[in-house]
Amino acid sequence: MTDRPIKSTGRIARRDGRGALRPAPLFVLVEPQMGENIGATARGMLNFGLSGLRIVNPRDGWPNEKAGAMASGASIVIDDAKVFETTTEAIADCNFILATTARPREALLPVFSPADAAAEMSMRIARGEKCGVLFGAERSGLSNEDVMRADGIISIPVNPAFASLNLAQAALVVAYEWAKADERKVQAGDQNLAIPAPKADFDRFFDHLIGELDNSGYFFPAEKRTNMVRNLKVAFQRAGLTEGETRSLRGVIKALVKQRDE
Amino acid sequence: MTDRPIKSTGRIARRDGRGALRPAPLFVLVEPQMGENIGATARGMLNFGLSGLRIVNPRDGWPNEKAGAMASGASIVIDDAKVFETTTEAIADCNFILATTARPREALLPVFSPADAAAEMSMRIARGEKCGVLFGAERSGLSNEDVMRADGIISIPVNPAFASLNLAQAALVVAYEWAKADERKVQAGDQNLAIPAPKADFDRFFDHLIGELDNSGYFFPAEKRTNMVRNLKVAFQRAGLTEGETRSLRGVIKALVKQRDE
Repeated sequence: MTDRPIKSTGRIARRDGRGALRPAPLFVLVEPQMGENIGATARGMLNFGLSGLRIVNPRDGWPNEKAGAMASGASIVIDDAKVFETTTEAIADCNFILATTARPREALLPVFSPADAAAEMSMRIARGEKCGVLFGAERSGLSNEDVMRADGIISIPVNPAFASLNLAQAALVVAYEWAKADERKVQAGDQNLAIPAPKADFDRFFDHLIGELDNSGYFFPAEKRTNMVRNLKVAFQRAGLTEGETRSLRGVIKALVKQRDE
Repeated sequence: MTDRPIKSTGRIARRDGRGALRPAPLFVLVEPQMGENIGATARGMLNFGLSGLRIVNPRDGWPNEKAGAMASGASIVIDDAKVFETTTEAIADCNFILATTARPREALLPVFSPADAAAEMSMRIARGEKCGVLFGAERSGLSNEDVMRADGIISIPVNPAFASLNLAQAALVVAYEWAKADERKVQAGDQNLAIPAPKADFDRFFDHLIGELDNSGYFFPAEKRTNMVRNLKVAFQRAGLTEGETRSLRGVIKALVKQRDE
């Protein structure tokens, strides 16, 4: 529960493992149309540890039932969202603003990939800046005026033949890169990675196998034996068998040859 | 228009700037429930240049009107989707499969971040392998059996306090990282690495082994059989056996049991 996103005065943050506050970028939706998209955006944000949502002049007013329904477990983001009449007001307290746009226009602004944008904001937030990301309306995107309010542009590298990332998808990509930049490590998992058996155990298994194959006349013609043994060894070696697995495989060999030796 | 995603026989690809075919991973949705989610997944795929969609046993049958509606401009992906009854059939011609899962279980499988997964698949696709990514049902995710069919796991690093990425969101993240990796064109360095056999060949080998072990009474006590089979599968899966190796191992099994059957 200590990891639950929380909101502190004027700055959106979540607790890290040591209970300290961890600030993150705000997402600012400018004139969004569909409540469902606002809800889906909230989900995507919270999935990647963001919870600061601001909304400029939403078409269907606020609060919006559909947004809450779509957000489901992320309703904390919806409940805490702040609504503004203009973009100017929504970003008034921010130090650094990036605008998402499908095509970087001839705005003489620096263009960031989502990953570079996340790194830039991470650096700025670490030194106390408040950062925000502007997302435009579903249909029209951001107006030129709103783009010009930003310090830079985030350009998501979509398929040029089908560039129709919707609002929630664009927000998800930016949030995902934020989480990566925020040094969220892939959880555990690698601890489960198999530890290969000591070579002695592997050899015992493999010698056992080759011995039984010799008994069975598998290696034919004889001059191919060296190569055949080597190829089998490579295949099993590559599995990185654990100690338990080498034991299991010896059991397998015994079972397979059992009736032969009876 | 030359950048429009196209589909060539048996392999999904899009044209690069010079008109050459560019293969990409297949996305395999296992028992998806909502047509809307299938459609949203298709959109996310095409936004990032993927178009190869396979669907295992969709809850509401196929074709699905809602999937087509939600896909809107990406209906080419929906129209070309292939439907299968089982995961086994859906991945039969694939050389390398990754399974997406929220929590990497104690499967002794390598765990990839989305970026690492994309780099790995990019390298493998560059040398001619067919790669696929498994996505589970909205509610339940992938079954253990389906996870065990994979060569590795993709773990998306979500907020531990709110880990509820939906199907289309998970697919979007994987597709996005694919597009990034594909742009970087990870060089195919390890050309010498073995190309894993199509899953159908692996299954033939493994079923052969299990059949003979059943004959020999290896699985004892009976209630342990499921786990024992799973552990054997993981060990052999991890080896990334080539087609030739699966053939050799079938020869090994035959040799070992030979006299038993005589």
